[in-house]
Amino acid sequence: MLHVDVNADVGESFGAWSMGNDASLIPLVTSANIACGFHAGDPGVMRATVSMAREHGVAIGAHPGLPDLSGFGRRELQVTPIEVEDLVVYQIGALAGVAAAQGVKLRHVKPHGALYNMAARDARLADAIARGVASIDRTLVLFALSGSALIDAGVRAGLRTASEVFGDRAYQADGTLVSRRHHAAVIHDPKTVTSRLLQMLKSGTVESIDGRLIAIKAETICVHGDTPRAVEMVRALRDALGEAGIELRPPSE
Amino acid sequence: MLHVDVNADVGESFGAWSMGNDASLIPLVTSANIACGFHAGDPGVMRATVSMAREHGVAIGAHPGLPDLSGFGRRELQVTPIEVEDLVVYQIGALAGVAAAQGVKLRHVKPHGALYNMAARDARLADAIARGVASIDRTLVLFALSGSALIDAGVRAGLRTASEVFGDRAYQADGTLVSRRHHAAVIHDPKTVTSRLLQMLKSGTVESIDGRLIAIKAETICVHGDTPRAVEMVRALRDALGEAGIELRPPSE
Amino acid sequence: MLHVDVNADVGESFGAWSMGNDASLIPLVTSANIACGFHAGDPGVMRATVSMAREHGVAIGAHPGLPDLSGFGRRELQVTPIEVEDLVVYQIGALAGVAAAQGVKLRHVKPHGALYNMAARDARLADAIARGVASIDRTLVLFALSGSALIDAGVRAGLRTASEVFGDRAYQADGTLVSRRHHAAVIHDPKTVTSRLLQMLKSGTVESIDGRLIAIKAETICVHGDTPRAVEMVRALRDALGEAGIELRPPSE
Amino acid sequence: MLHVDVNADVGESFGAWSMGNDASLIPLVTSANIACGFHAGDPGVMRATVSMAREHGVAIGAHPGLPDLSGFGRRELQVTPIEVEDLVVYQIGALAGVAAAQGVKLRHVKPHGALYNMAARDARLADAIARGVASIDRTLVLFALSGSALIDAGVRAGLRTASEVFGDRAYQADGTLVSRRHHAAVIHDPKTVTSRLLQMLKSGTVESIDGRLIAIKAETICVHGDTPRAVEMVRALRDALGEAGIELRPPSE
Repeated sequence: MLHVDVNADVGESFGAWSMGNDASLIPLVTSANIACGFHAGDPGVMRATVSMAREHGVAIGAHPGLPDLSGFGRRELQVTPIEVEDLVVYQIGALAGVAAAQGVKLRHVKPHGALYNMAARDARLADAIARGVASIDRTLVLFALSGSALIDAGVRAGLRTASEVFGDRAYQADGTLVSRRHHAAVIHDPKTVTSRLLQMLKSGTVESIDGRLIAIKAETICVHGDTPRAVEMVRALRDALGEAGIELRPPSE
Repeated sequence: MLHVDVNADVGESFGAWSMGNDASLIPLVTSANIACGFHAGDPGVMRATVSMAREHGVAIGAHPGLPDLSGFGRRELQVTPIEVEDLVVYQIGALAGVAAAQGVKLRHVKPHGALYNMAARDARLADAIARGVASIDRTLVLFALSGSALIDAGVRAGLRTASEVFGDRAYQADGTLVSRRHHAAVIHDPKTVTSRLLQMLKSGTVESIDGRLIAIKAETICVHGDTPRAVEMVRALRDALGEAGIELRPPSE
Repeated sequence: MLHVDVNADVGESFGAWSMGNDASLIPLVTSANIACGFHAGDPGVMRATVSMAREHGVAIGAHPGLPDLSGFGRRELQVTPIEVEDLVVYQIGALAGVAAAQGVKLRHVKPHGALYNMAARDARLADAIARGVASIDRTLVLFALSGSALIDAGVRAGLRTASEVFGDRAYQADGTLVSRRHHAAVIHDPKTVTSRLLQMLKSGTVESIDGRLIAIKAETICVHGDTPRAVEMVRALRDALGEAGIELRPPSE
Repeated sequence: MLHVDVNADVGESFGAWSMGNDASLIPLVTSANIACGFHAGDPGVMRATVSMAREHGVAIGAHPGLPDLSGFGRRELQVTPIEVEDLVVYQIGALAGVAAAQGVKLRHVKPHGALYNMAARDARLADAIARGVASIDRTLVLFALSGSALIDAGVRAGLRTASEVFGDRAYQADGTLVSRRHHAAVIHDPKTVTSRLLQMLKSGTVESIDGRLIAIKAETICVHGDTPRAVEMVRALRDALGEAGIELRPPSE
């Protein structure tokens, strides 16, 4: 039987500022990537988010980011491999502590924003992340862009990896994402999103923006919950996956 | 045979800014309290400090502080018990991650600065700290001012505690420290410092600032290394304790 | 002819996080208190908020807070007078720069949250704020709780002051606000809010929570825009003031 | 008569952390570039540094940096032109406020670290900085690497510029600095440093690392004070400039 994970970035509120729709989104996913305080999240938000995920039996993972609160971790920063390894270890540890205080264990790690993008193409930074993850806990699953340098680095470090795909994003012929600056970067039609994901899961292929059929590995699907409509799309996706006989479960199971 | 722990606050550099004299001080103590990034320290400094303590076989503990980098965690902040519990859990988790990446375990927790002082007198904040520590790891030893509300809270939470004393500080008749604003708050003469500590250890008493003999429990001695002379004083103290037949070892052993 | 100012705290978004409803609220007030980056706001948010206020001819003021982003400046912090003076000067300067870049001048200063509350009762901190304001620009109007230590400090420093009142808050017999922890601290009925404000303006009195008629000076009214209903209440208040023949204008005019 | 400015980056302490040797260095320079709180400095440090510069009659300038305290503003960050303009305006405003509180005016602006380097080669970021400076005060002198994109941007914005040179750094044939990673990037011999600077001032040329004679404009010399020896080198440089009949004065005079 085919199976796949559905993951979402959550716990991105900070102090008095609220973001996202975690209470609606968390029950719909199988893996929750929780911000760890560097680009978003704070100790109280982390506690509340772990609690919600735990209540719904959702696998909890760390979502470490660059130390850039005012830029939400979306701006690339000229960090060295050792700086990256240090900040990944710190943030995983912090969330692991918050989770341990509620009797749960982390299952995975997915870097956030600019750190995710930098590690997708830079093998030295990717190795630094993989090394950081492995040094804390070798059973953690490393989530990374399908086909990216970070997947390779995870394999080199002896970690289990989960190849991430995006149903709502266009792909280049080389398997990388089309930049958001491109007018056709984001796919808005829910039916197209779902059918692209089903094709990735069933045939291991996706059509690139220039019309070629390329290979892609789909082990975890990234979804968003920033609008009520986005949450609705996740529900529709779950239904479609269920009808197609595809089981939803985290990679760690 | 009598024994006591000697602890120091270390890892208080931040980014490009250096503080203290950790390389000289760490080999002289039995417990190192490492800053966790809220009042001082950063992921790289924490890694380097854990590494030094590990190399010298010194017990590693978390030194969580208030989120006040520009005030070095020395200014009291109107935090609620749940906020305190959250920030303690986060910081212990972060350092535990950094330590785990080097194959070592945390042994103790000592709150920093204003958090230490607030928890010494406020039972609700003290309970919040003890709860946070216990929720992560019940084997961690809680370091707190001898006779303070935080020692009581640790006992209530089922934790092992270590009663901390200061050889270079004057005490009130009620066992609290004389405020640093008082001209006689700090004792500068190395011989007086040593003889006061020996009395605390041997007879469980100390003379208060108004001349009374009060009871005090001395399980761990706080020392400083901010100047070359301070490091020299720690060496002299170690010698004096050795001559008096008092063994140095961390409370966790 | 009677006149009064209507002020609101705005520009409290930060980075990717949005707060409040500034686009709806700013056109309804005569003075905008703009956060300056310590408790909320960032350089981009400040620019956008100054731009909105300028477009609507609303007087712009600095809303300096304690350096506590994760606590939104609402938690009291043990700051010294010189620390307070420094952080007030820095924040006023920063906003004055942002305003100057758009060709506008600051008209007033209103401390935020815990800083406002501490300065209302502590003459030393109040003097520090007044000194900081006066050292930058003696024409700035200092907004402070009616009858508070900060009004007195402003007078001592030779500043023009604006006594602030709250239509939706209960008052103690001594003129201080009833703590929000008290069940009757906040008045929710729009008609009661309006009639209390009209009484303050016309007769210089308000009924305290224990039923006494106390004197109160009302030069500026604080309003909120955090919900669509709150914005509606500001519109209703403006109408009622207009019907009563009370002109709306900033104290600096 | 030939003249030149000697500038130094100062006010780079933060909170409890001290950096540099401002008390020794400030009396030796003609322009002080003061950190504004984003990469270093805080409101109290800024006040104290302005006070020192004022006392010695040294021209005061803003030294704005990227919002990266833990990286000391030395790591490039993917900022947009509008983000750069905003953060420059904010930081200049803040320091201008601190200076105004002591009755002094800013004379110049010199971007710090990674921001300086990015603006030296990226015309869009350079224009953003020049626009920000000009929007606050058109009389401020913009300090930038001699021959860089930032000098051009300053000219385009109608600002006076000061071309900065480094006596202790090797130059490429295109006039850019040799990267610090190169073994010959830094020149340590005080006599060589001085003779290179004298050649720049007298003949407008310098020898590049590959042995060519290139043109260079020298209006302000950057010096450092991080070690007692560095301070000694500044003294020696001042003497040599004096003997060569070159007057020291800020570009704003």
